[in-house]
Amino acid sequence: MKLDTLIQNVRLTDGRQGAWYIGIADGAIACMGPMADCPPASEAARVENRPGCIAIAGLQNAHSHVAMTLLRGQGGDLPLARWLNEAIFPLEDRLDEEAVYWGAKLGMLEMLSGGITFFADMYMMMDAVAQAAVDTGMRAELCRGLTSGEDEQGKLAGALDFADRWTGAGDGRITCALGPHAEYTTTEGFLKEIAAAARQSGLPVHVHASETRDEVAGCVQRHGVSPIAYLQRVGLLGSRTRLAHCVAVDGEDIALLAESRALAVHCPGSNLKLASGIAPISRMQAAGVRLALGTDGPASDNRQDMMRAMYLCAVLQKGITGDAQAGGARQALDMACAGACLAPGLPADIVLINGQGLHLLPEHDALSTVVYAAGTSDVVMTMIAGHIRYLDGAFPGIDVEQTVRMARMHQQKLLRGKE
Amino acid sequence: MKLDTLIQNVRLTDGRQGAWYIGIADGAIACMGPMADCPPASEAARVENRPGCIAIAGLQNAHSHVAMTLLRGQGGDLPLARWLNEAIFPLEDRLDEEAVYWGAKLGMLEMLSGGITFFADMYMMMDAVAQAAVDTGMRAELCRGLTSGEDEQGKLAGALDFADRWTGAGDGRITCALGPHAEYTTTEGFLKEIAAAARQSGLPVHVHASETRDEVAGCVQRHGVSPIAYLQRVGLLGSRTRLAHCVAVDGEDIALLAESRALAVHCPGSNLKLASGIAPISRMQAAGVRLALGTDGPASDNRQDMMRAMYLCAVLQKGITGDAQAGGARQALDMACAGACLAPGLPADIVLINGQGLHLLPEHDALSTVVYAAGTSDVVMTMIAGHIRYLDGAFPGIDVEQTVRMARMHQQKLLRGKE
Repeated sequence: MKLDTLIQNVRLTDGRQGAWYIGIADGAIACMGPMADCPPASEAARVENRPGCIAIAGLQNAHSHVAMTLLRGQGGDLPLARWLNEAIFPLEDRLDEEAVYWGAKLGMLEMLSGGITFFADMYMMMDAVAQAAVDTGMRAELCRGLTSGEDEQGKLAGALDFADRWTGAGDGRITCALGPHAEYTTTEGFLKEIAAAARQSGLPVHVHASETRDEVAGCVQRHGVSPIAYLQRVGLLGSRTRLAHCVAVDGEDIALLAESRALAVHCPGSNLKLASGIAPISRMQAAGVRLALGTDGPASDNRQDMMRAMYLCAVLQKGITGDAQAGGARQALDMACAGACLAPGLPADIVLINGQGLHLLPEHDALSTVVYAAGTSDVVMTMIAGHIRYLDGAFPGIDVEQTVRMARMHQQKLLRGKE
Repeated sequence: MKLDTLIQNVRLTDGRQGAWYIGIADGAIACMGPMADCPPASEAARVENRPGCIAIAGLQNAHSHVAMTLLRGQGGDLPLARWLNEAIFPLEDRLDEEAVYWGAKLGMLEMLSGGITFFADMYMMMDAVAQAAVDTGMRAELCRGLTSGEDEQGKLAGALDFADRWTGAGDGRITCALGPHAEYTTTEGFLKEIAAAARQSGLPVHVHASETRDEVAGCVQRHGVSPIAYLQRVGLLGSRTRLAHCVAVDGEDIALLAESRALAVHCPGSNLKLASGIAPISRMQAAGVRLALGTDGPASDNRQDMMRAMYLCAVLQKGITGDAQAGGARQALDMACAGACLAPGLPADIVLINGQGLHLLPEHDALSTVVYAAGTSDVVMTMIAGHIRYLDGAFPGIDVEQTVRMARMHQQKLLRGKE
């Protein structure tokens, strides 16, 4: 057997004890097993012998606005309306394709250094985001956020054209979706057109839903039902729908989510910082809702850190339910990896976490270590489709210094324009 | 002016803009100002020129059990009673002085690397903890946890003797307290004796209070009042009292806390993980309660990370109150530093945070950067009383490798004994 990469001496988080090897070939996991059965190093083009490391599947950031890295930390501690109107919108009005490219690329480097291999992103000027994803080697599901107003037909046609041009780019790492922004920004007519286009094109749907109690109250006032029920009514709730937030959901919403097989994306960091609340993940899980985890944009969560999201996911449910067995490490890691695991035949999206930091010692259960104590700074390798995109602080083939310089320059330009 | 250390080109978090210098002499901040006014480097024995760094006062871990570093991650996701009885107590029964010393020392290295300059600790075999604090150069307020049962008089005499022997050790960095463990572990008679001893000796008091609703219900059943009111009744609530947790407090408790000037220590990580809930910090602050922040022990919070505690403190109050202006960066940093700041004449307990990590760029507000996005891995220098105890990954004068080896060995011995 000829391997591209052979990872040696890592611990796993799924209960399998001892030191393991993982062999990678053609972008997939070719073989894995206890070190006693490890193929000879001579069979691999590259060997990563990493005793003290823990291997997990790549973290999947299931809801992001990565280009907002340019707006990181703007308007902190302001109430939502003032945050949007005074801090965020005036800056976003001045974004251009180049600013979006460099902001997105900086955010992708942050994600890669934190073990993230995939992100599902909704924003504007998505050609720039797609190009940055191709250039950084990340997997992504991308969509332009669609809102009502001028030229709805043009926006929808543009979104379909974007999907035509980018689906399958980056050796198949890029997929596309249709992104109706939210119930409160999009008319019923436009949502129905988007739903029809999604059915016809086969594209998945990415939408914000039930992020706040105010949003739900507004939807009930406008349409007589909750956003989840309303999305079902307009034909947008299904097994190919990704719903960001789902904080303010009731029993009926949860039943609809479970029945539809839609994916509910928990964004605990953003929901806390914007004072939206804490999504009832334990109740949703008990009802059989499909769950994933996201960071939301770095203007509301301030970092794109799935290790922090995973930690929050694990502990918040305990805190709000009073049940120390709620949430927990297993569920949080499963959600953070969107159910992916390490097994032969699966894509080689692999993250190595150094378990030797002083905050992780003495060594203990690998799963507990990863979820409750490790952080992004413990990530030492991020591999996507068999390619190492981050290793020991370096990004092979990417000009980090240029990315930082250009992102800084565009941020300064935005802030100057605002004055 | 002759300086021991001159820190150059750092940003501050208190609204003062631009690049600053801080001059240190004789363990205190001798001078600070904008770089334009910086004394010549020739006036300092050592210069730390750190453009891109942010300076904050040392983080103060206001409630810990640092020797439990040996038990890190044991019994995760178990309910409280099983966690204590099945995972923690059987291991603690086998602790000895040497195990406590090495566990505590490893935990102190973790704290130093995360910007913590002071910790208030309650545990057993505290001579070993005190020795480790002297050896690592940390500031600490230390007490043995006092519980009822056999030989109460001997325990109290031992605690007073401990205070006699250690107060002022480590060039004055060590102080001592009396540590009645909690209402539910200590009889009324013993609590009153401890209160009398505290008055007579002038020692402060460190006690667990109102950590869970069950604890409060039990106290009401036993004594007719809440733990806070009960502590007042037995003479233990005053301006020299440190109360860990204060999660399950009502309006009367909050009024008592404010009136007594007692210090309420918020331990958000532990309270979430053990499913105790979230302390009403915003309400306590509005009522004028003195507030600080702690990690609790690393068996329940899994890391001794005041950067994480600070982040949780800032965002959790927003999440539970629905008010995006609740909690926030300013309050969280003030609590994390126990009100200390950087000013001439104050002790030189100074932490430098590297603001150049990819997760912190582009540069934005320094306070927001520190609280919402930075982590312990961004800490590059921890100075206590003018001495650099951690610098760029190294601990001057401390044998880290020995500490890790000995802590591992003692952890293995404990775990083997349990089987």
